[in-house]
Amino acid sequence: MFVGIDVGGTNLKAGLVTPQGEMVAVAKKPVTPFTAPEDFVSQLVALTLDVCAQKDVDPATLDYVGMGIPGAVKAGEITYTCNLPLQGVPVESLFRQTIDVPVLLENDANCAAVGEYLLGAGRGTTDFAIITLGTGVGGGFIIGGKLHSGGGMVGEVGHMVIEKDGALCGCGRHGCWETYSSATGLIRLTKEAMDAHPQSALHAMAKEQGGVSGRTAFDTALTGDAVAVALCQTYVDYLACGATNLCSILQPEMLAVGGGVADAPSHLLMEPLASQVESSCYASNVGTPTRIVKAQLGNDAGILGAALLKQVL
Amino acid sequence: MFVGIDVGGTNLKAGLVTPQGEMVAVAKKPVTPFTAPEDFVSQLVALTLDVCAQKDVDPATLDYVGMGIPGAVKAGEITYTCNLPLQGVPVESLFRQTIDVPVLLENDANCAAVGEYLLGAGRGTTDFAIITLGTGVGGGFIIGGKLHSGGGMVGEVGHMVIEKDGALCGCGRHGCWETYSSATGLIRLTKEAMDAHPQSALHAMAKEQGGVSGRTAFDTALTGDAVAVALCQTYVDYLACGATNLCSILQPEMLAVGGGVADAPSHLLMEPLASQVESSCYASNVGTPTRIVKAQLGNDAGILGAALLKQVL
Repeated sequence: MFVGIDVGGTNLKAGLVTPQGEMVAVAKKPVTPFTAPEDFVSQLVALTLDVCAQKDVDPATLDYVGMGIPGAVKAGEITYTCNLPLQGVPVESLFRQTIDVPVLLENDANCAAVGEYLLGAGRGTTDFAIITLGTGVGGGFIIGGKLHSGGGMVGEVGHMVIEKDGALCGCGRHGCWETYSSATGLIRLTKEAMDAHPQSALHAMAKEQGGVSGRTAFDTALTGDAVAVALCQTYVDYLACGATNLCSILQPEMLAVGGGVADAPSHLLMEPLASQVESSCYASNVGTPTRIVKAQLGNDAGILGAALLKQVL
Repeated sequence: MFVGIDVGGTNLKAGLVTPQGEMVAVAKKPVTPFTAPEDFVSQLVALTLDVCAQKDVDPATLDYVGMGIPGAVKAGEITYTCNLPLQGVPVESLFRQTIDVPVLLENDANCAAVGEYLLGAGRGTTDFAIITLGTGVGGGFIIGGKLHSGGGMVGEVGHMVIEKDGALCGCGRHGCWETYSSATGLIRLTKEAMDAHPQSALHAMAKEQGGVSGRTAFDTALTGDAVAVALCQTYVDYLACGATNLCSILQPEMLAVGGGVADAPSHLLMEPLASQVESSCYASNVGTPTRIVKAQLGNDAGILGAALLKQVL
């Protein structure tokens, strides 16, 4: 049996997973503020004990515990993370002081890629990629059936510049893909459209929804509002630009799109996106464009991927 | 023993290569115009016989013949090429009618990546990338010690859009990296600078050199001409933009830069390029930026890589 833990900036989620990929127990808790790294790791230990107890599994018999970290990792340590004060923390050795089983650390987007590859949209492929549209744009690649990890720093696709000298990104570069195509980017584009079009129904929708979110543009477009429809097209254009780049560079058989934004109505997001990428990526020249699909596992992808990491190493 | 053949749009070059990667015989000829694919393949046969004869090697005893093709390949066939009328040609079966040894087909940029990885700049790395600055911008990736081929369509890095809605590219998209960063792109940027600055020394240099080439900007910058110096900086900016993208997406340990343009004076090209990419790629956050270096093998990279393909499959 395996435990997978998805370490988020605000929540920790663990799952007890069978070798067949079935999640038979789940536990979740908000991150309790901490100063000492030991206090953080003890939260991971508590979650592991929780899911094991639910199924009467002795934690010492786990094959390993896999953890998806929002950052970079190396040899059981977190080497970089921007959302939690964990840089340089030797997670594996601290964890094993209580539960002495192997700990595998991996970047969280890479874990999601593994989950979707083994159990979701990517089943049956050999070269698979995922992008996740959230606060930023994350990415993960399976190449030749193996995770291309690079210590979790591979797949920083959100920081691919698609508009040289464009909007400033948090990373310091200008025109990064995620400044346009993340949920955050979509909210920015939505606010800009609202400023430019005071008559648009976007205003009423935002008010009704309690503020502008990644849903506002799509929900308003469904009412037929022309500004919102054009805004959705603009968003898809940016998204397709970066996705096409990825496909031309790596030519995966399939690119899955995850994250909350991917739940937008298909005819406004996934259908035009797939159509644009499949017709403009370079491999369309040989009739083998990358298939563009929606990810299937939602938030479970990261836990499942963390739990089954060893299958793709 | 192995034979590697570099199939170019205008020249064919073959080398007889030892298992240690020593090229012990070379033959080269221009592509003779042909209509029947058999006539093209017979030119490849002739070159193979030539290099074998130089060293009294019986062609039937070759381990295999590797060929770098400017296009996409699959199972012994050329599936796509834009510079030679070879689409759909079953090269392997035609070749084996005369010399019955295995034939390995691969994209030419991928062969160059293999050559540099095994024998040139990339020795000692595990994750290695190369870009070649020529008519276009080509790319090839070694991931985990294996060529990431995808039938030769992987690594179409030149068609990564870095300036959305920018200059029109031959592929139909706008703002592709190679419209700025190929030798062709550099010539275009040079001509634009000349049009904008009639007083620049670029004009005299172009006249002296018999026309604008990929060297004009650098040679003029060496004389201190301010317009040429700024032009070289602009070119490096574009080149660094795409190279940084690649590094953030794939995080190779090393990115080698090949092609004629890479021979420009180091302080005008490779030094500022390396400095920009190494400081702005995402992995600089963890202190492990990709090393940016000049490729070492020149035109031999493709022949050597084709000959030694099996080592990275």
